[in-house]
Amino acid sequence: MEITAARIYKSIEAIRKQAPVVHNITNYVAMNSTANALLAIGASPVMAHAQEEVEEMVNIAQALVINIGTLSEQWVASMFKAVHQARKKGIPLILDPVGAGATVYRTRTARELIESGQPKIIRGNASEIMALNDDQFKTKGVDSAAASNAAIASAQNISETHKCIVCISGETDYIIDREKILKIKNGHPLMTKVTGLGCTASALCGAFTAVEKLPFMATAEAMAVMGIAGEMAAAKSFGPGSLQTNFLDTLYRLTEDDINKHLKIEG
Amino acid sequence: MEITAARIYKSIEAIRKQAPVVHNITNYVAMNSTANALLAIGASPVMAHAQEEVEEMVNIAQALVINIGTLSEQWVASMFKAVHQARKKGIPLILDPVGAGATVYRTRTARELIESGQPKIIRGNASEIMALNDDQFKTKGVDSAAASNAAIASAQNISETHKCIVCISGETDYIIDREKILKIKNGHPLMTKVTGLGCTASALCGAFTAVEKLPFMATAEAMAVMGIAGEMAAAKSFGPGSLQTNFLDTLYRLTEDDINKHLKIEG
Amino acid sequence: MEITAARIYKSIEAIRKQAPVVHNITNYVAMNSTANALLAIGASPVMAHAQEEVEEMVNIAQALVINIGTLSEQWVASMFKAVHQARKKGIPLILDPVGAGATVYRTRTARELIESGQPKIIRGNASEIMALNDDQFKTKGVDSAAASNAAIASAQNISETHKCIVCISGETDYIIDREKILKIKNGHPLMTKVTGLGCTASALCGAFTAVEKLPFMATAEAMAVMGIAGEMAAAKSFGPGSLQTNFLDTLYRLTEDDINKHLKIEG
Repeated sequence: MEITAARIYKSIEAIRKQAPVVHNITNYVAMNSTANALLAIGASPVMAHAQEEVEEMVNIAQALVINIGTLSEQWVASMFKAVHQARKKGIPLILDPVGAGATVYRTRTARELIESGQPKIIRGNASEIMALNDDQFKTKGVDSAAASNAAIASAQNISETHKCIVCISGETDYIIDREKILKIKNGHPLMTKVTGLGCTASALCGAFTAVEKLPFMATAEAMAVMGIAGEMAAAKSFGPGSLQTNFLDTLYRLTEDDINKHLKIEG
Repeated sequence: MEITAARIYKSIEAIRKQAPVVHNITNYVAMNSTANALLAIGASPVMAHAQEEVEEMVNIAQALVINIGTLSEQWVASMFKAVHQARKKGIPLILDPVGAGATVYRTRTARELIESGQPKIIRGNASEIMALNDDQFKTKGVDSAAASNAAIASAQNISETHKCIVCISGETDYIIDREKILKIKNGHPLMTKVTGLGCTASALCGAFTAVEKLPFMATAEAMAVMGIAGEMAAAKSFGPGSLQTNFLDTLYRLTEDDINKHLKIEG
Repeated sequence: MEITAARIYKSIEAIRKQAPVVHNITNYVAMNSTANALLAIGASPVMAHAQEEVEEMVNIAQALVINIGTLSEQWVASMFKAVHQARKKGIPLILDPVGAGATVYRTRTARELIESGQPKIIRGNASEIMALNDDQFKTKGVDSAAASNAAIASAQNISETHKCIVCISGETDYIIDREKILKIKNGHPLMTKVTGLGCTASALCGAFTAVEKLPFMATAEAMAVMGIAGEMAAAKSFGPGSLQTNFLDTLYRLTEDDINKHLKIEG
C-alpha cells in the first residue's frame, strides 16, 4: 500500500465529513493551538482531564491523544484512567512523550503510559524517542535534535517491543514500523519557532487514526499534512506569528492539488 | 424596550469608558482568547482560581463568569466559593455549562452551580441547555447542535425555574426570558472552526452585564456584538486562523455604523 | 556603561546563537504567548511545574522566570522548589508579581518568593511594585497604572533591601537599581489591549539575563526590545489581534537598524 496524495486527501475528506471526536489530555501551552488545528482539519476536539469524567469522555471519542508536556500528579492519574478506558473500548491511543529524557519523571511516566496504554502511535523528536528506549541517553531540553541512526534504532526497538508505530519528527519525519521506514521531507524551519506544533502533529495523528484503519498510514498522512500545511503557510509568512495564522488557514483549505504539488515522501 | 444599534453601541462606549473588571474562572483552552476578547471590547479581564483568593477577586469585579470547560475538583471548589461571594456582593453571575450532558460530572456540576449561584445568564449550545433541563438527554460531545424546539422549551423551563436569562447559541442565537424570545441571526459558519468563541460570548455577556442593568438586554447586546464582529471578521478571512486575528481587531474597532449595518434581530 | 542599539543587538545575536533554556513557571493565560515570544527572539522555552521535576528542569536552564498570574497551592509549592534550586545552581531568577496588591494571597506569595528566591529582577506595573513594598497600598485589579513617584520610591526601596533590579513597566518603563534609574520610552498604547505582554516582558528578561551578565543591562535591553517590537508591530496593525501576530514576526526579524531607529532611552 502506498501513501499518495489521493489517499491522504481521502482521509481529510473523511475527517471533514465525520468530524471524529478526538479526546486530548495535553499540555497547557499547546491546548488552544491543538484544538484549533483539529477544528481546522475538520475534527471535533475535546479537552477534559478530571478523573471524574475522563472515562466518559473516552467513551464518546474516536481517538485519544495523551501529551505529557505539562504533566503533574493529578493529570497523570487521569491519563492512566483514560488510556485504560481507551484500551477497553478499543479506540487508538496516540502518545506524545514531550520532554522524555529531560527529567526522570517524564521518562518514567511516558514509559509507564506505553506499558499500560499500548499506544498505536508514539510521536516525538529524536531525543525523546532515544530517551524512551535507553536510560543512558540524556536529552538536552525539549527541543528537536537531528534524527540520527541511533534514534531510528531506538524507534525500531520500541516499535518491535510495543507493537506500535513510532514517528520521529524533525527536518525529516521518520515513520517507523519495525523494519519498515517511511521518510517525509515536508515542513519548514520556521515551524520550529512556533510552540506546540509537535503537539499539534500528535493531535492530527489522532484525527487521522479515527478515519484511517492502518496506524502506519494514519501517521504518515498526518505528518505529511502537517509538513505540507507548514511549508505552504511559511511561504506566505513574515515570521512565526503569521505562520500560526496561515497554518490554520491552510489546514482548513487544503486541497488534493496542494498535497499533490508538495508531497515529498520516500518509501 | 428595544434592542437597537444605538443601545448596543451605548453599552460598548460604557465598557470602553469604565473598563469593568470581569472575573473569569474558565477553561485552559479559551483563557487566552477570552482575556483578549475582553480587552479588545474595552473590559478588564481577571483570571484567578485559587481558593485562597477568589472571594477577594470577586470583590473587585463587576461581573463573574464561570465556565466549566476544563473543570476539576479544586477548580469546582473555587467556583462555588466565587459564586457565593458574587451573590453576597450582588454582582451578576454568567454561567457557561460547557459540555453539560457529555459527562455526569459536568451536568451535575453545572446544575449545582445554578442552584448555588443563581446566575443572571446561562449561555450554552442547544445540547448543553437541553442536558441541563433533562436527564434523558445525552449530548454528543461539546459541539453546537441546531437549536430545536426542544431546546427552546428547555431554556424556557430553566429560565422560569431559576429566574434567569438563558441564551442558546448557534446559527441563530435565542435569548430567552420565560415567555419572551429574541432571535439574533448574526454570525458566520467559520466561527465554529475556532475554539473558544462560545466561551468568549459568555465572557462578553459578563462585560455587558457590568454596564447594562437588564440581563436580557445585556445578553442580547453581547450576542449581537459577537455575531456582528464574527461575520465582519469572516468576510476578510481566509480561514479560522485569520478569523481569530480579524475578530479581535473588529471587536476593538467596532462602530455604531458597523452595528447598524449588520444587526439582524427578530423580536 | 551605556545601553546602545549595538549592545542590545549583540545580546539578541547571543540569544539567537546560544538558544538559552529559559524555564518558566507562569500563568495559564500567557503560557502560549510567552513561549512563542521566547522562541521568536531565539531562546528555548521550557514550561514545567510538577514538584517531581522542577529541580531537574532548573538544572538544564540558564534562567528561571516565576510568574504568579494564576497561582494556586500546588504551583506555589513548585515555585519555591524551583527558586531554591535556582539559587543553589546560581542561575538568575526573574519574578513577575502579577496582581500583587489585588489579593492578600498574591502579595504574600510574591513577598515570600522574593525572600526565598532573591530574584535578580522583579518586573511589574506600578501598582504591583507599590503593593510589594507597602501594606497600605491596595491595587485596583491587575491593570497597569501610571508610574508615579511613589512607585519609583517603592522600587528603590525594594531594590535596596533585596539587592535586585526592579522594573516598573508602563507608558515609560523604569529600570531601577537603588539610586540608578533608566527610562525607556518605547512601546505603544495598543499593547495594553493584548493579554500577557507584561508576562512576555518578564520572560524576555529571562532570555537576556542568560546572555548578558549585568541584570540591570539585561532588563533594560529586554524592555527596550519589547517596546520597540511592540511599536513597530502596532504601526502595521489594525487592532490587538494583528498586533499579536506582528509582534512575534517583528521579534523574530528584529535588526540592529530597527533598534537604532526606534530606541528611546533616558539615562
